[in-house]
Amino acid sequence: MSTTVLYMSMSVDGFIAGPNAGPGNGLGDGGERLHDWIGQGDIEAAAPRLDDADRSVIDDFMSTGAVIAGRGTFEPAGGWQGDHHDGVPIFIVSRHEPPAEFAGYPNVTYLSDLTDAVRRARDAAGDKGVLVHGAWIAQRMLRAGLLDEIQLHLVPVLLGEGRRLFEHLGADHIELEPIAVQPGHEVAHLRYRVRR
Amino acid sequence: MSTTVLYMSMSVDGFIAGPNAGPGNGLGDGGERLHDWIGQGDIEAAAPRLDDADRSVIDDFMSTGAVIAGRGTFEPAGGWQGDHHDGVPIFIVSRHEPPAEFAGYPNVTYLSDLTDAVRRARDAAGDKGVLVHGAWIAQRMLRAGLLDEIQLHLVPVLLGEGRRLFEHLGADHIELEPIAVQPGHEVAHLRYRVRR
Repeated sequence: MSTTVLYMSMSVDGFIAGPNAGPGNGLGDGGERLHDWIGQGDIEAAAPRLDDADRSVIDDFMSTGAVIAGRGTFEPAGGWQGDHHDGVPIFIVSRHEPPAEFAGYPNVTYLSDLTDAVRRARDAAGDKGVLVHGAWIAQRMLRAGLLDEIQLHLVPVLLGEGRRLFEHLGADHIELEPIAVQPGHEVAHLRYRVRR
Repeated sequence: MSTTVLYMSMSVDGFIAGPNAGPGNGLGDGGERLHDWIGQGDIEAAAPRLDDADRSVIDDFMSTGAVIAGRGTFEPAGGWQGDHHDGVPIFIVSRHEPPAEFAGYPNVTYLSDLTDAVRRARDAAGDKGVLVHGAWIAQRMLRAGLLDEIQLHLVPVLLGEGRRLFEHLGADHIELEPIAVQPGHEVAHLRYRVRR
């Protein structure tokens, strides 16, 4: 079965966005700092300063076969213009219908049920992985036992304030199994399997 | 000048203690999970399963020349029986006088002023480092620009709830410079210099 993998850039103090994140300010105030290592998403521009560990992680998430996210991640990011990478299917978990500006994207499917959305994403990915993105969906998938792996790009900064990746998980411990701990050029790459 | 280094075991979701930490429950409910890698402090018992990276980090903090902490770390830990390691001087930042049970420890000095305490610890450490321990003092020293380095022992678990290491830092970014990113046996070791 396809593996669901959360890929997130996170500060050492646990934030994945600065304060006041929302529509038009997807990464929050100052949150773009977290994407410096990857050239704010312009991977070609960042390429000269990436090292092998960085490239390996980027290749890994660029070779996933489907994407799943919440609307709070997808919509402020302009719906990735309908294509996160290589035209793979994108599944958005939301109780709402897609806004008109995103309703015409052929690769994008809005679904209200998390379990259904994860199953659809796994099916679409086939023998590739499913890229999971965003704090809200990560928390829901962790609580539901639907997240298989976590790949953190740990950025050497303390943001101080903003949106945390790990919250609202309850007091039961979730054990992780380290798969890889690697320094990158401006970031550390930490990969864990979620034990169940 | 002596370098101040925060040494802390932290979960991947940023906690250094479980919920309900306090007197008699220093690590909080379930927080002892964070010290599994070091045998709950019984380093000799843990030694057979430690790897080189683990040993290097332990040697490093065991060779510091002074300790600084807040009373909220020191007192619930039984005042380390008056000796954190090798009888080095211990400086406790507190507005209160030491409780009677800790007042007789010859290596322990209670001080009310943070800057004074850090200066005294640096002087006592000489050409060795100062071991900084606890979330409260880490936050105060970071805000005051008095913390030189951060050594995290990142434990592969999500605690879900408890006491966070990084809070109350304000919205100004604090940039870190990676010094080392190393996998250990049951933990990852991340060391950063605090840029100022």
